[in-house]
Amino acid sequence: MTTAHDTRIDACVAALRSALPAGTVITDPDVTASYTRDQSRLTDAEPPAAVLIPRNTAEVSTCLRLACEHGVPVIARGAGSGLSGAANASGNAVVLSLHRMNAVLEIDEINRVAVVQPGVITADLRAAVATAGLFYPPDPGSVAFCTIGGNVATNAGGMCCVRYGVTGDFVLGMEVVLADGRVLRTGRRTVKGVAGYDLTRLFVGSEGTLGIVTEVTLRLVPAPGPAHTLIATFSQLADAGRAVSGIVGAGVVPGMLEILDRTTVRAVDALAHMDFGADVAAVLLVQCDTGDVEQVTELSASAGAVDIADTDDATEGAMLLEARRLALPALERLGDWLLDDVCVPVSAVTDLIAAIENIAAQAGMTIGVFGHAGDGNLHPTVIFDDTDPSSRAAATAAFDAITAAALRLGGTITGEHGVGRLKRGWLQRELGPVGMDVHRAVKNTLDPQHLLCPEGMLSR
Amino acid sequence: MTTAHDTRIDACVAALRSALPAGTVITDPDVTASYTRDQSRLTDAEPPAAVLIPRNTAEVSTCLRLACEHGVPVIARGAGSGLSGAANASGNAVVLSLHRMNAVLEIDEINRVAVVQPGVITADLRAAVATAGLFYPPDPGSVAFCTIGGNVATNAGGMCCVRYGVTGDFVLGMEVVLADGRVLRTGRRTVKGVAGYDLTRLFVGSEGTLGIVTEVTLRLVPAPGPAHTLIATFSQLADAGRAVSGIVGAGVVPGMLEILDRTTVRAVDALAHMDFGADVAAVLLVQCDTGDVEQVTELSASAGAVDIADTDDATEGAMLLEARRLALPALERLGDWLLDDVCVPVSAVTDLIAAIENIAAQAGMTIGVFGHAGDGNLHPTVIFDDTDPSSRAAATAAFDAITAAALRLGGTITGEHGVGRLKRGWLQRELGPVGMDVHRAVKNTLDPQHLLCPEGMLSR
Repeated sequence: MTTAHDTRIDACVAALRSALPAGTVITDPDVTASYTRDQSRLTDAEPPAAVLIPRNTAEVSTCLRLACEHGVPVIARGAGSGLSGAANASGNAVVLSLHRMNAVLEIDEINRVAVVQPGVITADLRAAVATAGLFYPPDPGSVAFCTIGGNVATNAGGMCCVRYGVTGDFVLGMEVVLADGRVLRTGRRTVKGVAGYDLTRLFVGSEGTLGIVTEVTLRLVPAPGPAHTLIATFSQLADAGRAVSGIVGAGVVPGMLEILDRTTVRAVDALAHMDFGADVAAVLLVQCDTGDVEQVTELSASAGAVDIADTDDATEGAMLLEARRLALPALERLGDWLLDDVCVPVSAVTDLIAAIENIAAQAGMTIGVFGHAGDGNLHPTVIFDDTDPSSRAAATAAFDAITAAALRLGGTITGEHGVGRLKRGWLQRELGPVGMDVHRAVKNTLDPQHLLCPEGMLSR
Repeated sequence: MTTAHDTRIDACVAALRSALPAGTVITDPDVTASYTRDQSRLTDAEPPAAVLIPRNTAEVSTCLRLACEHGVPVIARGAGSGLSGAANASGNAVVLSLHRMNAVLEIDEINRVAVVQPGVITADLRAAVATAGLFYPPDPGSVAFCTIGGNVATNAGGMCCVRYGVTGDFVLGMEVVLADGRVLRTGRRTVKGVAGYDLTRLFVGSEGTLGIVTEVTLRLVPAPGPAHTLIATFSQLADAGRAVSGIVGAGVVPGMLEILDRTTVRAVDALAHMDFGADVAAVLLVQCDTGDVEQVTELSASAGAVDIADTDDATEGAMLLEARRLALPALERLGDWLLDDVCVPVSAVTDLIAAIENIAAQAGMTIGVFGHAGDGNLHPTVIFDDTDPSSRAAATAAFDAITAAALRLGGTITGEHGVGRLKRGWLQRELGPVGMDVHRAVKNTLDPQHLLCPEGMLSR
């Protein structure tokens, strides 16, 4: 496959070099190798034939127009922090990295709108709008190094979602370069607007398969007031589940409602000596408004919480949340890890964790579960040995069993990480044949040569 | 055009009659005439050749499959309360009314999800979920008689949007019958989910041009606490504008933030003798949390409010809001009316009202403005004489001037009513040539014969 495309790529790279400023088209193998994959595990990837690093929309358009003319696949890349392999490269493709387009173009305080380029680091945007007393809620785990463009491409989530929603809920409009190089503007700057189809939402979460986003207009919200942080430990998993359903069902809208299962708690204890103890089956971490603290405490206690601690001090709150932040680092110490991302109805969160405990027990594997209990979005993390083929196979089997369990419980194969190469085989199980047909029809309409992320979620 | 299609229609109606239960296919001219148009003014319409009233998804599928086979256009219709002519019929088409599919199929209290058929009246759904302590926020002006299906097709808004967002923000998934009769399921029941393209949002607001929605899965929120209601009057329009920008800019998120201009206030005074007086240039109506009352009052006063009254009593609050509810009825008494719907950045609300005052003065016409100041979505209402062709022409010219002013101020041609027949000529001015091309490509992919609402927003 790679060989068959070599001529096209050589001609394409030559055309790109002559059309673009020096330093835009990179073929140094040491550099291209570093653009081979995102942070997913067990996904295929090859170094790309070239890396393109445009500085503006016109250059992105030139890249796509020439790639289209030469029939060369293009893989869009933000920070490479994705977890589904959507940004993984192939040898017959070029990677287009947006990291040079990293300007915050405008912050409109009165209308609460920010206009940004895709390469802006999410944490940088959050800091920039905070100086204006505003808040950009989406906070994926990679917030410190992921980009807005990648967040938009995957419709990224995070811990704030339980109150504020996901990335797509904050995208008012965008500029997108289509597969043939045409520049499309979608959406608007106003809060409301129904002129035409919601193309903005069609591109959000499309994982680079329909076009490349070159500018995003984002809705901001007022900075939230001070939060209260609670930690509750449970000796029975089902008790934690009752607390989650109780809090959500009571109409409390927490700013954060996270869960750690037994395996994760033990790993965190081993790493940071937090003294949770061996009897803890689950930990809940909650941020909420001061007015809701009493109710959250009562609901946790009546569900059977063993210990509950809370604070309205920001520094102490951050310390309580340390257990959540250390979840993945703690599990990483146990071996190689395969991080899953499924979402189920909130009422099924502990059913899913129980199912995963069964899967782990039957396979004789370690699987830690943590995640966003308040919206049913969990991250089961399978520990395995990447050097042992049978361990890799067992990890994949466990991963598949978890995804199947999520679907069985009325959930989805991915809550926020995306499909990419990792779960493209699962997509039709969730969407069904008509859904797949419509997906392919939309893809074929916007990218008839199938050049944008061709090995991604809608690979042929 | 109508004549050329007659044979196709006769054959199609015969095929529909033989495939569907008695009472589903109606050709009685007295009945079909009542399905000619929605509540828009100055839009074309003809009685349809037949009205189809299916009872379930399978029957909707049969309708579309047979219409597709015979090449007959199909116009979907909810309650006919639309204001853009999207549900207006043509003589060569059949109207498919969803009003018999009006069941609330499920209310899941813990996961805060409702599953409904499209014909459910929006107010009925709101009442049904209220008994479970839950809230379905979207509240278009027609809430008492419009349907969820119509709300989804137009992405309807209302007064709650300033805090909660629009209909699309509450649609988790749907069942849609495609132009050829295939049944597509989109989205999911979970709060988060990124498996594949966001087809749900593609169909929301597509005004019956891409498919017919036969089931909707809706997100619900906890019932809100008691609200405080304020009314503030201003002797200068610009003062009201400063109050709006001040309230929004201060980070207050009101449950409602409505404005009435001088013309509307006078009309309301004439109808209901509310004694606003001749000096009032604008009225703001605000609902907010009790904790925000003091700040809203101060911001209104410092912006120059002449009078401010507030109450935490629900009955008194409803009385204060009476002026808003009477806005359109009061303007209707002045003559025939052409209701516009544009949206601008919040900071431009009073610039738009001032521009409209100029348009009215120059044309010697009466134009009342009221609407959702908190999200910049206004409803300028042009008063004219429908029996006088020159008055009709002047009304159309004023309407066009208003829409152009909204675009000039960074806004959109429609905030919540939709494009339909009324504004299809404006769509390309907002979307541009690439935007129109992509819209047509998506339309052609899903409806290659152009049979669904062919005279709607994307008429050929």
